[in-house]
Amino acid sequence: MLTPRAEDFPRWYQDVIAKAELADNGPVRGTMVIRPTGYAIWERMVDEMDARIKAAGSQNAYFPLFIPESYLRREAEHVEGFSPELAVVTHGGGKQLSEPVVVRPTSETVIGEFMAKWVSSYRDLPLLLNQWANVVRWELRPRVFLRTSEFLWQEGHTAHATEADARAYARRILHDVYEDFMVNILAIPVVVGRKTARERFAGATNTYTLEGMMGDGKALQMGTSHELGQNFAKAFQIEYSSREGGRELAWTTSWGSSTRMLGGMIMCHGDDNGLRVPPQAAAVQAVVTVVKDGDQVLATANKLRDALSDAGVRVILDDRVDTPFGRRAVDAELKGYPVRVEVGPRDLGQGNVTLVTRYNGTKTPLPLDQAVDAVTAALHTAQESLLTEARTRREENTAEVSTVDEAIEASGAGWARLPWSAVGVEGENKANQQGVTVRCLTREDGTVPDSEDEPGLVAYLARAY
Amino acid sequence: MLTPRAEDFPRWYQDVIAKAELADNGPVRGTMVIRPTGYAIWERMVDEMDARIKAAGSQNAYFPLFIPESYLRREAEHVEGFSPELAVVTHGGGKQLSEPVVVRPTSETVIGEFMAKWVSSYRDLPLLLNQWANVVRWELRPRVFLRTSEFLWQEGHTAHATEADARAYARRILHDVYEDFMVNILAIPVVVGRKTARERFAGATNTYTLEGMMGDGKALQMGTSHELGQNFAKAFQIEYSSREGGRELAWTTSWGSSTRMLGGMIMCHGDDNGLRVPPQAAAVQAVVTVVKDGDQVLATANKLRDALSDAGVRVILDDRVDTPFGRRAVDAELKGYPVRVEVGPRDLGQGNVTLVTRYNGTKTPLPLDQAVDAVTAALHTAQESLLTEARTRREENTAEVSTVDEAIEASGAGWARLPWSAVGVEGENKANQQGVTVRCLTREDGTVPDSEDEPGLVAYLARAY
Repeated sequence: MLTPRAEDFPRWYQDVIAKAELADNGPVRGTMVIRPTGYAIWERMVDEMDARIKAAGSQNAYFPLFIPESYLRREAEHVEGFSPELAVVTHGGGKQLSEPVVVRPTSETVIGEFMAKWVSSYRDLPLLLNQWANVVRWELRPRVFLRTSEFLWQEGHTAHATEADARAYARRILHDVYEDFMVNILAIPVVVGRKTARERFAGATNTYTLEGMMGDGKALQMGTSHELGQNFAKAFQIEYSSREGGRELAWTTSWGSSTRMLGGMIMCHGDDNGLRVPPQAAAVQAVVTVVKDGDQVLATANKLRDALSDAGVRVILDDRVDTPFGRRAVDAELKGYPVRVEVGPRDLGQGNVTLVTRYNGTKTPLPLDQAVDAVTAALHTAQESLLTEARTRREENTAEVSTVDEAIEASGAGWARLPWSAVGVEGENKANQQGVTVRCLTREDGTVPDSEDEPGLVAYLARAY
Repeated sequence: MLTPRAEDFPRWYQDVIAKAELADNGPVRGTMVIRPTGYAIWERMVDEMDARIKAAGSQNAYFPLFIPESYLRREAEHVEGFSPELAVVTHGGGKQLSEPVVVRPTSETVIGEFMAKWVSSYRDLPLLLNQWANVVRWELRPRVFLRTSEFLWQEGHTAHATEADARAYARRILHDVYEDFMVNILAIPVVVGRKTARERFAGATNTYTLEGMMGDGKALQMGTSHELGQNFAKAFQIEYSSREGGRELAWTTSWGSSTRMLGGMIMCHGDDNGLRVPPQAAAVQAVVTVVKDGDQVLATANKLRDALSDAGVRVILDDRVDTPFGRRAVDAELKGYPVRVEVGPRDLGQGNVTLVTRYNGTKTPLPLDQAVDAVTAALHTAQESLLTEARTRREENTAEVSTVDEAIEASGAGWARLPWSAVGVEGENKANQQGVTVRCLTREDGTVPDSEDEPGLVAYLARAY
């Protein structure tokens, strides 16, 4: 059914998105339609992320889609970075607008304007905001979930009294929200590090990133957190009176993660039979499948569904017995439901059902009265196994090298890891010319450096989506 | 602090939105910024609505913000209705677009296009979709929450095999989702009825509505549910092969409710001291206020906050003792927190705290160990009392009249109710010229008619937001 991954990974990706009914291309080039199966997984992601964002103290708000063009021009690097990607509204209500407005590509500028209004004293800081929204960045080479002209995301924007406070918060989000979510919910063992000056967000002084390894060995930037220094505070006059009575500029941060994470989950865990959704991220964790019709079978399947639901499992019943069983099994595999419990007359005659775990394809007959416990345990094991498998793959496909040339060569099949001192700006240029980028810098022990000038840093180089 | 409602209701509305920090005007005319206090209430609304929409069987999905201009033209009434309100993107990625795209004012057209792709057999019906999204309708006379150029909403879109199925579903949403939510969560006793032909949605064959009475006696349309007949099915070829093998056009519905409901909640329940948020809709149901500093006071307040939270109350602690108590009390009133528990050294010396209920301003001293039960009971009472109060006001301010002239006169201070046979198309024209509209038609017993030609119908006439 699906193109095998080894044959053509990008085509496999397209196939699985179409056949698992996750998304479609929209009519305007580069836009996408997120279908119910895909959107339900996104809702799970939003729930988990939103809880972590709130636990980190940020409050949700909503800022306008339309931003006056002049706002973007106030921060020089920012406008330079985003100008090529803007969608511009020139007409509204049947008339040409006196000033064109851009559809937000991100909201630092408009939120900066309101931070300046709302902040007057050190008592108003930190100001910790987040919004769930759509943004538009015109894409020349769109790919569903990974690069689309419109995508859904959360963008956090905070203002602080000191640089140290801003840095600590940008990193708190990086670790407590993003890393925790990606590792424990998406089962993606991201490498967390610092972007080089060249890879920084337009307008940032520091960009932190979380990089995931996909099934073909390429990298995907899964989320970023930025220190914006005082750049936007200057551009929008975000000032406060300090405890001592002076006027000070605030220090701001921004951080985002998007529907791109859906693409990352697909490409990290999917196999030749379709998706493998980690149970924590799954909208459907278990499906109870009626193999064949029959009063006892149907009644048992319904009871089992209810028992699983009572045990806190997100479960659905598949009783479409007029559709061949084989087709329904293939569909469940495609959609990556972590666990399937097959209830059929033959097994049931012996008091059994069959437990099928998606991540490893195992089929286990087991007594009906053990089914709930077995499903709960299988979900736990599946979550851990997917993470372990992805971590092992990442380690096996990360080559320790010592020169940029070796790194470029190794970036065909995976990542390369080498001393940042062996790369530098010149080496980064050379790699870029071959389509290889510095994904991030970390310290030797895996922690995140404060500067790219720290001695002993390690660089990860790879081809990326 | 606030302009009294009796003096200038629209100014009171603006004041309360500013001072309770619910929203600000955005920089592009007609847009709004929803601040954390306002957005937290919207999140409560979304949670409650979303649960009801899912219980009614609809699934969430996401369709693109940008719609090709040509899509809108396929349904003649639809394009005529929305053309004056469109925002048009003419440039993307630095180039002029070959076909301009509109920013969705609503999504019947683009969703119709995909329904046509996804529906092929009667087995695919009903197709029940919903999305949470932003939409843009250029507004000449914007007013925060009520009429904004961009707003947040849910829009449901469904396709059915028969007209009867479509009608039943449009009504299920009307009653089980909208009416239930508005009455039981927002405590707004809406009148549920049918729009006249003139007030129908552009492209609909039947429009159902829920009308709330605001504090000044005007009406606010709080939500609508539409039967679209086969209009969009024809325009987008939403066809299915029937059980008998023939090709049939589907019957579609759409239904929406928006951030406008926030405006309705403010204007229905607010008083001269600020908001009164019904406990079911409140993001903050109770605030534990530390009157003055002191070790025992702080420890007690923290314990009480935890106990209330454990009891399922959405509670915050106000321990900002460096801000004068009076100012914090005024702020809590402004924000409409349903219950305030004041913990101060004097009361506490006698083992007491003070319970303040926002809806009626009552202050009751009570023993600390009864506080949790008292808060829970007070929330229950406040919810019921706000609904009763709003229902009484609606009944008292609805005049039974018998002519259109009387209805126009009565519409200064409230609503008018009269036989639809005494209005008709001519009477509707006459009322419209005086700024009075037919809000809806109901049967004598309050149920929703199938047609405006049914005998014995009652018309509600009013001025409206």
